[in-house]
Amino acid sequence: MDFEALKEYLETHDNYLILTHKSPDGDTLGAGFGLCGYLRDAGKKANVLNSESFPLRYKFLYEGYYVQEFEPQSVIAVDIADTQLLGSHLAAFAEEGAIDVCIDHHISNKFYAKRSYVDGNASATCLILYQFFKYIGYEMSNQVAKCLYTGISTDTGCFKYENTTPQAHLAAAELMGYDIEFASINRKMFDVKSKGRLIAEKKAIEEMEYFFDDRCAIIVLTTEMMNSCGVEQAEFEGMASIPLSTEGVEIGITIKQRHADVFKLSVRTTEEIDASAFCKRFNGGGHIRAAGCEIQGTLEQVKAKVLNEVREVLGCSDGK
Amino acid sequence: MDFEALKEYLETHDNYLILTHKSPDGDTLGAGFGLCGYLRDAGKKANVLNSESFPLRYKFLYEGYYVQEFEPQSVIAVDIADTQLLGSHLAAFAEEGAIDVCIDHHISNKFYAKRSYVDGNASATCLILYQFFKYIGYEMSNQVAKCLYTGISTDTGCFKYENTTPQAHLAAAELMGYDIEFASINRKMFDVKSKGRLIAEKKAIEEMEYFFDDRCAIIVLTTEMMNSCGVEQAEFEGMASIPLSTEGVEIGITIKQRHADVFKLSVRTTEEIDASAFCKRFNGGGHIRAAGCEIQGTLEQVKAKVLNEVREVLGCSDGK
Repeated sequence: MDFEALKEYLETHDNYLILTHKSPDGDTLGAGFGLCGYLRDAGKKANVLNSESFPLRYKFLYEGYYVQEFEPQSVIAVDIADTQLLGSHLAAFAEEGAIDVCIDHHISNKFYAKRSYVDGNASATCLILYQFFKYIGYEMSNQVAKCLYTGISTDTGCFKYENTTPQAHLAAAELMGYDIEFASINRKMFDVKSKGRLIAEKKAIEEMEYFFDDRCAIIVLTTEMMNSCGVEQAEFEGMASIPLSTEGVEIGITIKQRHADVFKLSVRTTEEIDASAFCKRFNGGGHIRAAGCEIQGTLEQVKAKVLNEVREVLGCSDGK
Repeated sequence: MDFEALKEYLETHDNYLILTHKSPDGDTLGAGFGLCGYLRDAGKKANVLNSESFPLRYKFLYEGYYVQEFEPQSVIAVDIADTQLLGSHLAAFAEEGAIDVCIDHHISNKFYAKRSYVDGNASATCLILYQFFKYIGYEMSNQVAKCLYTGISTDTGCFKYENTTPQAHLAAAELMGYDIEFASINRKMFDVKSKGRLIAEKKAIEEMEYFFDDRCAIIVLTTEMMNSCGVEQAEFEGMASIPLSTEGVEIGITIKQRHADVFKLSVRTTEEIDASAFCKRFNGGGHIRAAGCEIQGTLEQVKAKVLNEVREVLGCSDGK
């Protein structure tokens, strides 16, 4: 669907459920609460759903938000490339084929919804929403502007990564004109760490292992290690960038334990390697420099599988 | 002077020496080599000077640069608020009153040059140059665009800090249209760390001390500690932001040993505290959220002095 079709759809429906993805980040929550803010401003009813509860570190995105009572008529997924990302509590929406609209910027989007607006070139789903709001002439509230800025900023690593576009900068230039305290948002999102988080990072760096002439760095975060730090699971999110931060590393992998024998991989790469293609080897996906997947097995098995694929991707023939 | 006067000045002079500040950062080097690139494109002769040699981590800013032979006629200082920042090898220019033009964005600029273009609201000296180049209609080379982007990006913490303006975003939106590989620049400037640096950071976090109910965090970097990490001094630059990264900290201070009894303070603050005013207590200066100064004495003396002032600034009356 195009913006005109999306506009028409939103005008002719009501009572929206907005789905955000599990392990929610700034873009899915920014898009969720941003869209919800618009719909409510337009006199509609809308709620934002997540499989888990909304993390406290994003509290500023849902301040003033309250759950409305209504009989749902329309379901919209934001920033969700694949129904697997709905999480256990929202999975039923996919199983029943009940997702009416998907708004997303992942090139790997599976087109599971009845109608989709997918722009794989957009830096963030929040940037798509920003452009849509411009298109329909919606005058944003400060709260909605704050949601959109946060999604664009967090998904681009604060305008740092390759997925940053001139459009992302132009949107930021306008959005920071609202009363959003963008520097305070960025500080919360990128700089502020709990003491536990600092300790966790320190530990992670300590335990980082290098492979293949230091071209690959891997950090393993076991449940035990994470629990011992006394930190919310959500705090471990930004860690994915650490392994790639060492000079010379081309592929950085964070292996996070989800359950006893289930590990989640976050893969970050430099120009040489396609992270999305790498994760596809394990039925995952994402962006070209940042992607993810889940692998089952013991930690030893998972590491062996991963190193095997890394060896191939780096073109190392021998046991090195 | 205004842009018209600066334009006239540059048109009617030749054989430029461009001075950059000691412990050079992305903005002073970006402005230096950016201005030099423009002057050479305009058929003039120009060299960029620094008290020390140019750090290797900024090599991409001076690739293709070579020293020209000429009899100097004009001296221009870029991004230098105070002649103290010239460094020992360039100090003579100030002593002889030989600095003709200063282009700077520090509100604390001392107006030591014969003519100054100072815009305290500009995010970076490179942003001033960008606007000047637009004003005179100069069509930048990719290399000059790379220099300007780098200065704007590094001085705003990649568009993260309060000093980021809509103008900074608009400039970035245009500059990234040149062949500058902005993501690779940002990766080099913000993400890539040598193994030694990672070890140094780990150590710094380990040794971080908290004071006044965790409202103040201090990291001390002694020459001994820095040497033991096997890392270039320039690598310790970005560390100033670490102490402020702990939740609840309002003033973060990095104390770096310069000589046996000389310590350099880098001060970072949240909304509550004026870092520039704090550093003025020690005859330093800078920006409202990021400032610096030098203090003489043993480490113990320096720490005692600093904590005394912090106590006052935080309004703590007792020994707490």
